[in-house]
Amino acid sequence: MKYPPSLVALIRELSRLPGIGPKSAQRLAFHLFEQPREDIERLSGALLDAKRDLHTCPVCFNITDADRCDVCSDPSRDQAMICVVEEPGDVIAIERSGEFQGLYHVLHGVISPMNGVGPDRLYIKALLPRLNTATEVILATGTTVEGEATALYLQRLLEPLGVNLSRIAYGLPVGGALEYADEVTLGRALSGRQQLNSARPVPPVPGKVRQSQERGDDDDNGGVTVPAQ
Amino acid sequence: MKYPPSLVALIRELSRLPGIGPKSAQRLAFHLFEQPREDIERLSGALLDAKRDLHTCPVCFNITDADRCDVCSDPSRDQAMICVVEEPGDVIAIERSGEFQGLYHVLHGVISPMNGVGPDRLYIKALLPRLNTATEVILATGTTVEGEATALYLQRLLEPLGVNLSRIAYGLPVGGALEYADEVTLGRALSGRQQLNSARPVPPVPGKVRQSQERGDDDDNGGVTVPAQ
Amino acid sequence: MKYPPSLVALIRELSRLPGIGPKSAQRLAFHLFEQPREDIERLSGALLDAKRDLHTCPVCFNITDADRCDVCSDPSRDQAMICVVEEPGDVIAIERSGEFQGLYHVLHGVISPMNGVGPDRLYIKALLPRLNTATEVILATGTTVEGEATALYLQRLLEPLGVNLSRIAYGLPVGGALEYADEVTLGRALSGRQQLNSARPVPPVPGKVRQSQERGDDDDNGGVTVPAQ
Amino acid sequence: MKYPPSLVALIRELSRLPGIGPKSAQRLAFHLFEQPREDIERLSGALLDAKRDLHTCPVCFNITDADRCDVCSDPSRDQAMICVVEEPGDVIAIERSGEFQGLYHVLHGVISPMNGVGPDRLYIKALLPRLNTATEVILATGTTVEGEATALYLQRLLEPLGVNLSRIAYGLPVGGALEYADEVTLGRALSGRQQLNSARPVPPVPGKVRQSQERGDDDDNGGVTVPAQ
Repeated sequence: MKYPPSLVALIRELSRLPGIGPKSAQRLAFHLFEQPREDIERLSGALLDAKRDLHTCPVCFNITDADRCDVCSDPSRDQAMICVVEEPGDVIAIERSGEFQGLYHVLHGVISPMNGVGPDRLYIKALLPRLNTATEVILATGTTVEGEATALYLQRLLEPLGVNLSRIAYGLPVGGALEYADEVTLGRALSGRQQLNSARPVPPVPGKVRQSQERGDDDDNGGVTVPAQ
Repeated sequence: MKYPPSLVALIRELSRLPGIGPKSAQRLAFHLFEQPREDIERLSGALLDAKRDLHTCPVCFNITDADRCDVCSDPSRDQAMICVVEEPGDVIAIERSGEFQGLYHVLHGVISPMNGVGPDRLYIKALLPRLNTATEVILATGTTVEGEATALYLQRLLEPLGVNLSRIAYGLPVGGALEYADEVTLGRALSGRQQLNSARPVPPVPGKVRQSQERGDDDDNGGVTVPAQ
Repeated sequence: MKYPPSLVALIRELSRLPGIGPKSAQRLAFHLFEQPREDIERLSGALLDAKRDLHTCPVCFNITDADRCDVCSDPSRDQAMICVVEEPGDVIAIERSGEFQGLYHVLHGVISPMNGVGPDRLYIKALLPRLNTATEVILATGTTVEGEATALYLQRLLEPLGVNLSRIAYGLPVGGALEYADEVTLGRALSGRQQLNSARPVPPVPGKVRQSQERGDDDDNGGVTVPAQ
Repeated sequence: MKYPPSLVALIRELSRLPGIGPKSAQRLAFHLFEQPREDIERLSGALLDAKRDLHTCPVCFNITDADRCDVCSDPSRDQAMICVVEEPGDVIAIERSGEFQGLYHVLHGVISPMNGVGPDRLYIKALLPRLNTATEVILATGTTVEGEATALYLQRLLEPLGVNLSRIAYGLPVGGALEYADEVTLGRALSGRQQLNSARPVPPVPGKVRQSQERGDDDDNGGVTVPAQ
């Protein structure tokens, strides 16, 4: 039995999508075949509309359909902080967490020698002029080897520029048990531990980090880590 | 067909073990049936020997066969730091990470109202006299609800005693992508971010954490977090 | 942050596809955003082309872009056998197995009272005139509750019509161990066992199936089962 | 930190058990440490008791604590049928299905050239004298490559002896959809299909199998397959 060419073409196009293998593509094609014409036209139109309307924000390279993206054009966001992420989807993940009120910078990739992606293929150069107004850059690329390499590259690039640099924390996921953490992560969770209080009666030991500031709340989110000596 | 009683008994005892359901117990029993007598006697003996020889260390409640456990009797360990964990297995997980050179305190459980486990059922009271020599306590219970509740209980108990208290870090596992982190963990990873450098040209702001120590390396393990404002 | 409307629309349309949840739809949308315009247009076009070109074969209700489907219009297929399946995808699965040279009949669903699908919603009526030329109908609906119910309905409908009726075999998958088979399947695998030889010394019993054909090979695919007494 | 030797020994013995890796063994050891002495002694005793009491039935090599196993010593079982299985666990799986009332023969393994297991290492020779009373042998080794090879070996060995030989059915598991079956299994499910009725008005075709027997029930378990031509 030969498949009709337009079925073959549809399965081929669907199987180009990430995470959709040939069998899933075939299943999707048969599913689409059963749907009413309006549904197919709406999906087809949504694809074209999105391609026509959407582009990257010229400031932060997030996805937008306007001159500037919704974050960049919001004056209530903290203009002094820039969170550098790999992809537009990371912006959404962080926005959902509700923990960040600053701006973003989307690299659209990671440095990956294996895939021939060097720093010049990412939106890194456009980050530099933004440091005139920003005072802290959070390197929120992933903790994969390539995300780490990209963060290290940015750290070396930005350090001389006198900007506060930080890296998202390594550690245990919320809801995790120690015995299921890999040992590298566990080591990081220990060395990056968050101080919960300052031990007031203990005098500072020379050559060691001490935290003498008063804290108005117990929230360890805003806590301070101490070095793992 | 009826099973022989000693087969039934063996399957029943094996299925009491955690993570071993009736079907696994049956499979194990049949496997054991095929093994030579010596192997069975060695397993049976190992069970009895372990029960006879092993007990908890009277200082830290880790497992030992001696007067004191191997960590407590090692003078080269940092006597000023105590890492509080839930179970003896957590000691091993942390030892494997190689990141900790202090002492342990094993609670043998977590506070769990659901299971009727209150603080008095854990080895908490014996922790207090140890604070005479220790200056930092790392709360390394899990990040589960019960591990969190136990850490919070210990924090409130130990805070008045003038000891440095810290909590293992929440964050992304090593090798993780942002899009696979749940949003609570991602929020923690951001708020607990590790400072990579100090922004030298920026003058210290009163009432804010500042990092004035010199850093001999770039290892962010020993970094210092800044508050998420 | 608000998403651009055309991004929202695309994510919504993608998440209507089976097996694609909101998170996958978002990931797909971001992936599509990164692709060149030609790729999006080709996917969009493939959707519309497939919808325009494809329809069900008026004989067997398989998918085709012609007057008759590729199987129905192939005179070398065995016109005496009809294999009844649930969906067009099942035709492809069976074709891949290479074990069937007859014709198909695609029901486009299963009887499912839970979902309000009765026999009249399936392409059952159109099967009846096909029995003028066919002498065997293989009921190859799934072995789920609904596939079974559909097979039973067809059995009762077709039995009075003097056609040979058969049902695909239940049993162990190729490469399976008995201990991983569920007990109902194992019972079916035993009762439906395939006879490998005929016991020559045993005389034929009148009224029972006998195997008089010569067998040129040992392939039990072509074997004959014996009743489970 | 060094582990106590008796803890090391226990973890080592536990990790010899199939399906229990080093990490599970460690978890089990810590669990056992927390259990009362009586529980450990009961497990240890159950191991020794099972080893002392249990042996293989001299007839069928099933596990028993008596002169003959429970199946062999039950006169109500059908003495004419012998179901050949790989392991004692398979006997239990089949007994649970409730579909078989005959006797068993447990090979205690499969032919496996890769692992140096030839026919002489299995309880095959002892099967031959049993064929004096049995008239059907069901080869119920697994459908893995080794189970297949063992079944083929037995088929060639037993065929000249004038005994009815059958093989458990290949096919779809109960509750399965066609699209999730691998193509080899699907091909077997089709070629081994079970006849549901006999097509009364159709005259027998010479050279083809025909089913002329009346059937008192509709149960396809007891059905008859037709060759896949």
